[in-house]
Amino acid sequence: MARWQPDAAGRLQAAALDLYAENGYDETTVAQIAERAGLTERTYFRHFADKREVLFHGSEQMRDEIVAGVDEAPAELEPLEVVALAIEQIGAFFDEHRAHSTRRYRIVAASPELQERELIKRASLVHAVGDALRRRGVADPLAELTAETGLTVFSLAYRRWAVDPEQRSYATHVRELLAQLGGVTAAGAGQPSPG
Amino acid sequence: MARWQPDAAGRLQAAALDLYAENGYDETTVAQIAERAGLTERTYFRHFADKREVLFHGSEQMRDEIVAGVDEAPAELEPLEVVALAIEQIGAFFDEHRAHSTRRYRIVAASPELQERELIKRASLVHAVGDALRRRGVADPLAELTAETGLTVFSLAYRRWAVDPEQRSYATHVRELLAQLGGVTAAGAGQPSPG
Repeated sequence: MARWQPDAAGRLQAAALDLYAENGYDETTVAQIAERAGLTERTYFRHFADKREVLFHGSEQMRDEIVAGVDEAPAELEPLEVVALAIEQIGAFFDEHRAHSTRRYRIVAASPELQERELIKRASLVHAVGDALRRRGVADPLAELTAETGLTVFSLAYRRWAVDPEQRSYATHVRELLAQLGGVTAAGAGQPSPG
Repeated sequence: MARWQPDAAGRLQAAALDLYAENGYDETTVAQIAERAGLTERTYFRHFADKREVLFHGSEQMRDEIVAGVDEAPAELEPLEVVALAIEQIGAFFDEHRAHSTRRYRIVAASPELQERELIKRASLVHAVGDALRRRGVADPLAELTAETGLTVFSLAYRRWAVDPEQRSYATHVRELLAQLGGVTAAGAGQPSPG
């Protein structure tokens, strides 16, 4: 145990995913996760505050990448298109790690406690994307509204992607939802149709 | 204490709002809330599971009223317009109880713990509104997307309404956001502009 462990956090996450899938989230203890990963509980708690957090390993990195995507998007794009582009780029990771991502999705979907944590992570993501849009000069309430709407597309696309029997790409789901959204809100705003 | 208490829950909520505003949420105990309301801790826990829940008194009723608003909306309305109508109807309550609602808003906004609970309540509201839309024959993903979008408008309108120096009505904020949203998503969907 005393030797240097490369990517202890990643090993702990893999072990947790295995055990949560095998025995259920509620039934699994941190001690079991650490044991499966060949590490100590102490090491676990150096990386993760609790039993939930291990499933959100990498979520700060994902947030930073989405924010970078917003920061770096071409200036001429509309705000929602900027967010769409940023989440599509992240989607490439989901597609490349489909087995991992769908397994994680199922574990989170089965536990109200984990869904709560997911909601909190999502709120922090909305906040960060709103800040990034404001840095691009988008004013409120447009920035807030676009961040919320973009992250709604992000979450719903993820849910649909994770259970898609045809295994279409994440970006395909994002585009489908965006197309639907255009119809929804044009009507909601009570704008006269051009025809 | 043994005598019959009309609306104990309402009195506990009023006492909690007072104490949270005076001394802060973290510093206030259930014992203090019960004492201020002239009730026992035991009575408190008969009504509310914990220190947070007292601030969400009435949220099930609000959810049921929003759902009823969706159920009863005219058949010819577009889905987002249905949700908009339902939340505007609820907004009349906010306008009538502006002092209470804005005080509650400030307390929740100052506490991450309370914001978490608010997120969870909102997720349950999204779920209920999605179900109501599906009962109207709206298919997924349109129903999910509309429920999420409608509740985003609900929350953002509430936040803007609560700090509006001009004290405009809640429905005014809802309409402003819906108008903005029409512009956001028309661009996001990549539809060519009519002009």
